[in-house]
Amino acid sequence: MPRPAFKVAQIGAGRMGAIHGRDAKANPRLDLAYLIETRSDGAKALAAALGCGTATFAEALADPELAGVIVASATDTHLDFTLACLAAGKAVFCEKPLDLDLARLRARAADFDGAAAPLYVAFNRRLDPHFQALKAKIASGAIGRLATLAIVNHDPAPPPPSFIPASGGLFRDFTIHDFDTARWLMDEEPVSVFALAECLVDPAIGAAGDVDTARLILRTASGRICTISNTRRSGYGYDQRAEAYGSAGMALADNPRNSTLETWSQDGAMAAPIADGFAARYAEAFRRETDHFADILAGEADPLTGYEASVGALALAEAAGRSAQTGAPVALEDI
Amino acid sequence: MPRPAFKVAQIGAGRMGAIHGRDAKANPRLDLAYLIETRSDGAKALAAALGCGTATFAEALADPELAGVIVASATDTHLDFTLACLAAGKAVFCEKPLDLDLARLRARAADFDGAAAPLYVAFNRRLDPHFQALKAKIASGAIGRLATLAIVNHDPAPPPPSFIPASGGLFRDFTIHDFDTARWLMDEEPVSVFALAECLVDPAIGAAGDVDTARLILRTASGRICTISNTRRSGYGYDQRAEAYGSAGMALADNPRNSTLETWSQDGAMAAPIADGFAARYAEAFRRETDHFADILAGEADPLTGYEASVGALALAEAAGRSAQTGAPVALEDI
Amino acid sequence: MPRPAFKVAQIGAGRMGAIHGRDAKANPRLDLAYLIETRSDGAKALAAALGCGTATFAEALADPELAGVIVASATDTHLDFTLACLAAGKAVFCEKPLDLDLARLRARAADFDGAAAPLYVAFNRRLDPHFQALKAKIASGAIGRLATLAIVNHDPAPPPPSFIPASGGLFRDFTIHDFDTARWLMDEEPVSVFALAECLVDPAIGAAGDVDTARLILRTASGRICTISNTRRSGYGYDQRAEAYGSAGMALADNPRNSTLETWSQDGAMAAPIADGFAARYAEAFRRETDHFADILAGEADPLTGYEASVGALALAEAAGRSAQTGAPVALEDI
Amino acid sequence: MPRPAFKVAQIGAGRMGAIHGRDAKANPRLDLAYLIETRSDGAKALAAALGCGTATFAEALADPELAGVIVASATDTHLDFTLACLAAGKAVFCEKPLDLDLARLRARAADFDGAAAPLYVAFNRRLDPHFQALKAKIASGAIGRLATLAIVNHDPAPPPPSFIPASGGLFRDFTIHDFDTARWLMDEEPVSVFALAECLVDPAIGAAGDVDTARLILRTASGRICTISNTRRSGYGYDQRAEAYGSAGMALADNPRNSTLETWSQDGAMAAPIADGFAARYAEAFRRETDHFADILAGEADPLTGYEASVGALALAEAAGRSAQTGAPVALEDI
Repeated sequence: MPRPAFKVAQIGAGRMGAIHGRDAKANPRLDLAYLIETRSDGAKALAAALGCGTATFAEALADPELAGVIVASATDTHLDFTLACLAAGKAVFCEKPLDLDLARLRARAADFDGAAAPLYVAFNRRLDPHFQALKAKIASGAIGRLATLAIVNHDPAPPPPSFIPASGGLFRDFTIHDFDTARWLMDEEPVSVFALAECLVDPAIGAAGDVDTARLILRTASGRICTISNTRRSGYGYDQRAEAYGSAGMALADNPRNSTLETWSQDGAMAAPIADGFAARYAEAFRRETDHFADILAGEADPLTGYEASVGALALAEAAGRSAQTGAPVALEDI
Repeated sequence: MPRPAFKVAQIGAGRMGAIHGRDAKANPRLDLAYLIETRSDGAKALAAALGCGTATFAEALADPELAGVIVASATDTHLDFTLACLAAGKAVFCEKPLDLDLARLRARAADFDGAAAPLYVAFNRRLDPHFQALKAKIASGAIGRLATLAIVNHDPAPPPPSFIPASGGLFRDFTIHDFDTARWLMDEEPVSVFALAECLVDPAIGAAGDVDTARLILRTASGRICTISNTRRSGYGYDQRAEAYGSAGMALADNPRNSTLETWSQDGAMAAPIADGFAARYAEAFRRETDHFADILAGEADPLTGYEASVGALALAEAAGRSAQTGAPVALEDI
Repeated sequence: MPRPAFKVAQIGAGRMGAIHGRDAKANPRLDLAYLIETRSDGAKALAAALGCGTATFAEALADPELAGVIVASATDTHLDFTLACLAAGKAVFCEKPLDLDLARLRARAADFDGAAAPLYVAFNRRLDPHFQALKAKIASGAIGRLATLAIVNHDPAPPPPSFIPASGGLFRDFTIHDFDTARWLMDEEPVSVFALAECLVDPAIGAAGDVDTARLILRTASGRICTISNTRRSGYGYDQRAEAYGSAGMALADNPRNSTLETWSQDGAMAAPIADGFAARYAEAFRRETDHFADILAGEADPLTGYEASVGALALAEAAGRSAQTGAPVALEDI
Repeated sequence: MPRPAFKVAQIGAGRMGAIHGRDAKANPRLDLAYLIETRSDGAKALAAALGCGTATFAEALADPELAGVIVASATDTHLDFTLACLAAGKAVFCEKPLDLDLARLRARAADFDGAAAPLYVAFNRRLDPHFQALKAKIASGAIGRLATLAIVNHDPAPPPPSFIPASGGLFRDFTIHDFDTARWLMDEEPVSVFALAECLVDPAIGAAGDVDTARLILRTASGRICTISNTRRSGYGYDQRAEAYGSAGMALADNPRNSTLETWSQDGAMAAPIADGFAARYAEAFRRETDHFADILAGEADPLTGYEASVGALALAEAAGRSAQTGAPVALEDI
C-alpha cells in the first residue's frame, strides 16, 4: 500500500531550486503543490516546468494541509523564510547555509530551540553514498581508532567574479561543506583551525576580496587532525574525496567516474572523467535529501543536520577566515 | 513547458513488471494509467503499490487514449500480447525476449513487418551508460578498426532449478544478452558460433537438461571474432564487462562498484563490491528504456531494437545450443 | 657466508642470449665463465660486453669444472645442444622451446628420461611475480574450486614477416606460453582444443602461411575450461593477463604499468602505459629463472619445467593448429 | 666494450650499509674493494657476505686507486667522514642526512664550497621511477602552472622508542624526505612552514620527547602551497604518494603494489598490499643512487643533491620543529 504523500511547497527557483523541485516532484512520498512567488522572476517558469501551481508565501503558510516547505531561495533569505515557516508549524528543508552571519544565527538560537516544527538544513555530503560508505567503515572499527582525516574539495572552474561579493567568501561558501564533513566523520568538535589561503586561480577573485585556493588544518581536543584542500579551479572536474586514517588502516572515498570506460593506447590507459560539477556529483545525495525530508514529515526520522550543524560549520568558517588573515591558528573558543 | 504525458498500460506484475512499472510511474512523460489483469494474481497488488488502476486486456485495447503498452508478462505470453497490441495500433515496449522459439517468431514475420504501431524489444545493455560509452568509443575510431570483442556475463548465483525448464536454457535466457551486445558492438552479423558448455555450478541444473557455464566464439564474415564468457555463479557479484580490441588500441567497459570506498590494511586494498544482480546493475538502463519508449511514443525516435534484433539474437542462441550439443561450430546459414 | 658460485657457460648471443647472459653475470651464485662460439657471430661481442671469455662447444663440454650450460641459441639448435650437454653431465637451462617438432621431441624421450644431469626448460610466466601470486591464490582455496581460466597474451606489434617461416607459427611460437600457463594454473591436462585463427593484423603474415589473431578454448577431463586470447598487435603494449574463476570468486593477475603516474584532465585520468615488450615485462622472471638454475645446480630445487612440460605445451600447439585448419575441436589423444 | 669499474669503499654496515653495499657489489661500473672498519662490529661480517675486504679509514684514504667512498655509517658520523674523504680527494656518496645539526652544517659551508671532490647526498625519492615520472610530467607543462602539492609519507609501523633520542626527531629523521621532495617538485624555496604535530601512535615516542603524527603546510614566495602528511604507523604499509595540482589539471604518483593480483569476492575486490617498508619501496631508487654515483665518478653527471639540498631540507625541518612547538607558522628567514 502506498504511503500518503505530504503536501509541500518550495521557495526558490534558481539552480538549487530546479534540483530540489525536480526531486520533490519525482518523489512519490511528496506532493509538490506549488512554488512560492518571491521578488525573483523564476517561480512561475519553474512551476510550469514542474507542472505545479504557485502561491504567495502568506497563502502557503495559511494552507492547513501544507506539511513542509523547501527553502532554496537566495542565501540571505534562508533565515527569515525558515523561521517564518517554523513559526507557522511547517517543517523546513533548507538548502545550506541557514545563514552566512554567525552572530545573527546565534542571536536566533532561542527561536530554533523552541521551534514548532522540525528543521533540516541539507549538507549534501552526508547523504552521498560514497561518503556514507566511508562513515560506515569508520564506525565499523575496521580502521581502528580514527586519528586523522584528509578532505579534498576542488571545484572544476571558478565562479564568475560577480558571484564573490554575496557568496560569503571561500570558507563560508565552499569550505563550509568540508567543515561539516569534518565534524561528521571525526565525530569530534575541532578546537583550532589554521588556514593558508591564496589567490592563485583568478586575480578578479582577489580583487573582489576573496581567495580561491586554501589548505587548512583542524585539530580536535583529543588530538585528531583534519586537513582540507580547496581550489576554485581543478582543471580536471569536481574532485570530492576523503581519506580517514586510523590505528589499524585507512579508508577512503574516491571520485566516481562518468562511466567505467577505459581506453588503452600506447600512451597509457585513459579512464573516464569525474563529474564536472556538483549537480552531477551529488544527484543521488540530493534525491536522498528529499527522501529524508519525507521521512521527517512522516515522523520516521529526526533531521540529520539542522541549526546546531549550521552554527558548528559556520564557526569553523569564521575561524578559518580569521586564521587566513592573521596567519596564525585560531581557537574555536575565541569565535 | 512540460511535454504531455502519454497514457500507457502494463501487462505483467512480476520481477520485471515491478521495475518497469516503477520507472513508468516516475517518468514525467508517461502516464501509467492501469495494469492489465491476467491469470496471474499480481496485477492488483502492483497497481495498488504504484497508485494506478487495473483493467482487462480487452478494455485496454479498446481505450482510444491508450498510446502504448509495456509487456512484462511471462515470457511465453510476450508474442501474443505484443501482436495483439500492435494490431490494435498500440505501441509496444516488450521486455526481452519477444519469444523463445525461433521458428514461431519467424513464422510471424509478416505480422511484424506490417505492424500498425512501433515495437521496442528492450535489450538492457544497449542503454547502459557504460556499454554506451564503449560503443561510442569504438565508433569514434579511437581504437582503429575493430578486430575482436570479449564479453563477460556472469550471474552472481544460479537460479532455482525450477526456473530452468521454462527458461529456454542458458543460451536463450542468459547469453541472449551477449548475442545482442555482440551484434550491436561489432556492427556485423556473426556467421558461425562455437560453444563449449558445462554444468559446473549446480548438478540440478544439469539434471534439468541445462548447462551453467559456457565459453563461446563467434565469427563474422569479415573475420571479426567475439568471445563470450558465461557462468550462472560468479561468487563475487554480477560481472558485466566488455573489451573491444582494434588495430590501434583497446577500449573496455568495466563493472561499476557499489561505492568508491576503499579500505587499506596490511592485507591489501579492498574496493567495494560490484552490483549483486541485474536490478541494481541495470537500474539506469531500465530508466532509459522507459524514456526511450516515451521518445518512440513522441515520434522522436525509432525503436533501437525490435523484431529483427530479437530474431538475430535468438538465431545465435539456437546456433550455440546446437554447437554445444554437437561439439562443432555451427554456421548461422544453417539456422 | 657467500655461497660458492657455479661455473656456467652460455650458447647463444641473440636477443635472449643478451638477457640471460646479463642475468647470469649479475647473479652472485653463478660464474659465467665463457660464451660458446657457434656459427653465429655474436658470441665474441657479447662476451666482451659481459666481460667473460669464449670457448668452443667441445672445450666447454670437456671443462670438468663447468657445472651447467645456458642454451639460448637459435631454436632449431636447442634440442641437439641440450642433449649433448646432458650427455656430458652438464645441467642445462634451455630457453623455451626445447624444439618445435613434437614427433622429433617424442622420439628422444628415452634420452631425456635417463639424462645424467638436470634439464630446466624456461617458461617465463611460471616465475613472474604476478602470475605466481595468482597461482598461490588459486592454491590457497580462496576462490573455491577452480572452474575456468581466461588468458590474455597480446603482443604490442607484429614481428617482421621474415620471422614467420622459422617461428613454427603462432601456436608453437607465441601461444606456447599460454598452453604452459594453462597447464600450470589449471593443474589438469586439457583433453581438447578448439582454435579460431585469423590474419587480421598483417597480410604479409598470412602470405607467409601464418595467422596473427586467435581465440582458443581448451577443456580438461573434469570439465575445466580455459580460453586464450592472442594477437600479434595490440596497439597498446604487451598485454599479459590471466583470470581464474572458481566456485567462490575470482582472482586475476593484471598488467603492471611502467609507473604509478596518473594525469587527470578534463578528458579523464590517464594511467602510465604497460610494458612495451617481453624484455621489460618479464625482466624479473628472467632474473628468477637464472636464480632457479642456481638452485638446481646447488641441488636445492628440481627444475620447475623440463621435457614433460615442453611436450605437453607443444602437443597443445599441434592440436590448436589442426583445429584452426579443420575448424573443429581436436582431441589431445589424437595428437 | 665494458666501462672500467671505479674502486670504491664503504663505511657503515647497518641497515643502509647492507643495501648500499649489495647495490655497489652488483653494479658492474663499481668495484667495491673493501668495507672500512669503524668502532661498530658489522664491517667484517658484511664484507664477508659481500665477498670483499676490509681496511681502516686511514688505509682507505691513503689508497691512491680509491675513487670514492660510500658513507652509510651512523648519522652522527656522516659529517666528519664525508669531510675527511672530500679533503683526501675522494668522491662521496653519503646516505642522507649529511648531519642533523643545522648550525654545525652551516659552520662548515666553506669546507664544502671548496671541496676537492664531488659530494652526493642521497635523497631516495629523487631517483624513484614513480616520483621521477611525476617530476617529468610537471616539467612537461601538462598540468599547466604548478600551484599546490600534497605529499603523503606514512611509515608502516613505529620504530622502537630507543631509536627516537638519536634520530633527531620526526621532522629531521622522517619528514626530511618530504622537505627535499617539496623543494624538488615545486622548484621553489618555501618561505614559511606551519606544522601541527601529535603523539597519536605510541606514548613511548611522546615520552621520548618526540611526535609521531604531523600535518604541515609550506608556502613559497610566489604563493605555491605544499602539504605534508606524516605518521609513524599507517597500519597498511609504507604509503608514499604525491599529488601535484596545476592550472590545467593534476598529476600524481601512487603507491606501487606488491603484485597486480586482485581477488574478487562478495566482499569486494582485494588488491595486493603496498610495500611494507622503505627497503622494498625504494629498492630501485637505491640501485639508481649507486648508478648515479658511478656517473659522478665517471664525470658524466653532477651530484643531484649535495650540501645545498641538505641544508635546505634541514632548515625546513628546523622551522617545522619550531612551528610545532610554538603553534605558529615560522618564516624560513628566521631559521
